[in-house]
Amino acid sequence: MLTIAVDAMGGDHAPKSEVEGSIRAASNFDIKITLVGQEDLLRRELDQYDWRGLPIEIVHASERVTMNDSAARAVRTKRDSSLRVASRLVRDGYAQGIVSAGNTGAVMATAKMVLGLVPGVERPASVGVLPTVEGSPVLLVDVGANVDCSPRMLAQFAIMAEIYSRTVLRRFQPRVGILSIGEEEHKGNELTRAAWPLLQSLNINFIGNVEGGDIYSGNVDVIVCDGFTGNVALKVSEGIVEMVKHLLHESLEATITRKIGYVLSKAAFADFKKRLDYSEYGGAPLLGVRGVCIICHGRSNANAIKNAIRVAKEFSGAGINQHIEEQLRPIVREAGAGDHFKTAT
Amino acid sequence: MLTIAVDAMGGDHAPKSEVEGSIRAASNFDIKITLVGQEDLLRRELDQYDWRGLPIEIVHASERVTMNDSAARAVRTKRDSSLRVASRLVRDGYAQGIVSAGNTGAVMATAKMVLGLVPGVERPASVGVLPTVEGSPVLLVDVGANVDCSPRMLAQFAIMAEIYSRTVLRRFQPRVGILSIGEEEHKGNELTRAAWPLLQSLNINFIGNVEGGDIYSGNVDVIVCDGFTGNVALKVSEGIVEMVKHLLHESLEATITRKIGYVLSKAAFADFKKRLDYSEYGGAPLLGVRGVCIICHGRSNANAIKNAIRVAKEFSGAGINQHIEEQLRPIVREAGAGDHFKTAT
Repeated sequence: MLTIAVDAMGGDHAPKSEVEGSIRAASNFDIKITLVGQEDLLRRELDQYDWRGLPIEIVHASERVTMNDSAARAVRTKRDSSLRVASRLVRDGYAQGIVSAGNTGAVMATAKMVLGLVPGVERPASVGVLPTVEGSPVLLVDVGANVDCSPRMLAQFAIMAEIYSRTVLRRFQPRVGILSIGEEEHKGNELTRAAWPLLQSLNINFIGNVEGGDIYSGNVDVIVCDGFTGNVALKVSEGIVEMVKHLLHESLEATITRKIGYVLSKAAFADFKKRLDYSEYGGAPLLGVRGVCIICHGRSNANAIKNAIRVAKEFSGAGINQHIEEQLRPIVREAGAGDHFKTAT
Repeated sequence: MLTIAVDAMGGDHAPKSEVEGSIRAASNFDIKITLVGQEDLLRRELDQYDWRGLPIEIVHASERVTMNDSAARAVRTKRDSSLRVASRLVRDGYAQGIVSAGNTGAVMATAKMVLGLVPGVERPASVGVLPTVEGSPVLLVDVGANVDCSPRMLAQFAIMAEIYSRTVLRRFQPRVGILSIGEEEHKGNELTRAAWPLLQSLNINFIGNVEGGDIYSGNVDVIVCDGFTGNVALKVSEGIVEMVKHLLHESLEATITRKIGYVLSKAAFADFKKRLDYSEYGGAPLLGVRGVCIICHGRSNANAIKNAIRVAKEFSGAGINQHIEEQLRPIVREAGAGDHFKTAT
């Protein structure tokens, strides 16, 4: 049975969401959970549920990384943090993956340092898994791990996310695009124009540039961009979903007839909200580190944690990192050892 | 009475949307409209309405810029295009502003060349006028005119859009932010980090970094970013609104009870769609050119054209360009004449 280490002290609602999500995951999936954090706190939280017989255990960690800690500080000073201890469990082979709703920068830095990188990978990439009109999710990569990117990094993101789409999401020949502002090759900024020929040369189903409006259309399976642009796109999406909920609610409250309409169509709204809700998609995989790391939103509820654990399980089972290493090997060899941090154009 | 020149051959539905929108504007606002395009076509379209007595006239132009023309080609070869002729009407003082739903790149290049820049402005900037939860719109600048930007350009965008917010939208001490990924000064990419101290030094109400999620929140009045990021943010927003409409419709169609609910709350949805609909906001002002230029979406309907004409009128009446020139003068002097295209850091 696979074991997933859950950083139980990371999120805004820690350890409540983490514990409840772990109980749901252990009840529904064939998986063992190791909750990492302050033992007494976790035991008290667990004891609010009937968890007898569930494959859940606690590993104590005395410290916690807060949202205000810088990534550097978290890595340097908090050596007994729940995040650090959970990462070590993966490094040492005790667990196959880690799930954390903690400080994103700290999770990435810790995972990178403790787990190390898959050979050939320059920088780990965070992947947004987003809903589409068609129903099958789209991957947006990078969504914040790497703010300023080289064209070569975009090519590596494409390779890693294409494998993820193929193996975990079971997409056949995933369509890979560059997020830009215009479809033609010459449209875009310096980065996207330089990345185009690199992606063109890869052994993937590259469909060229896509635009912001394509993200949710279902026209594309993997979209690469620098982490600044990806993070803005993600946050804009969250913001507009909030606005939509708000405006819709206001409009439906305005008159009695509308309110009755609202009551009658309530199931439709529950349905609709669920489809818009990122928590259904279960966190952002961090690709390129050895082992499996899923980063959840700080605001994650129990459902989001449960789904992230499911994603971690699927990720672990797919042997993605081996695929990534194999796909990158010829490219790394070609580029030579010296120019890892140069652009390849 | 102010005169607005409407490029009647630009949009996807030209000249239908342009003519109908102009009739609505001339009926509702105290304004004269000059429709520019193929005379016979425009007359035929106009004659479908009762336009007797309305202050509308036609100026003939034999050519039209298509969506496939490059901006350079439009500027170099189509000297009698409706876009070019309309721009000349503004340059020569015959009209005070131009409205076009044509090829965005061509509109920007033509306006820049024919009208020229306000003294002190390095590059014209296109402004997205977006709805917020609070009701008052937010300005996002640049949304595509300038793909790769210097920190200094962001500072100029801030000055121009702050004046627009203050005078046209009548915001008191508009809150100006940089679009970034994290609130702290050190968060963001090279561009936003370098732009921060520049914006901090300006005589505006600078509130620091804002995130994608803040755009629609009403927490900020002016958001500056490079045109690549701004365009992605705009297109993502449009895409997600389409997805929302689609998913909501599907959810509401699923059962009979839900359908009845939908019928009862139909007015709420009309209301809701209107509030999400960008056409209510009337096009993107191009700031920094002499005269007034409003760029509409190619897909604009008559309502969008009507609202763009209203915006052009308000823009013309506000004396913005003079304010921009005055605000930029000390900064230009300080920086010296030689380093217009360097960054100021």
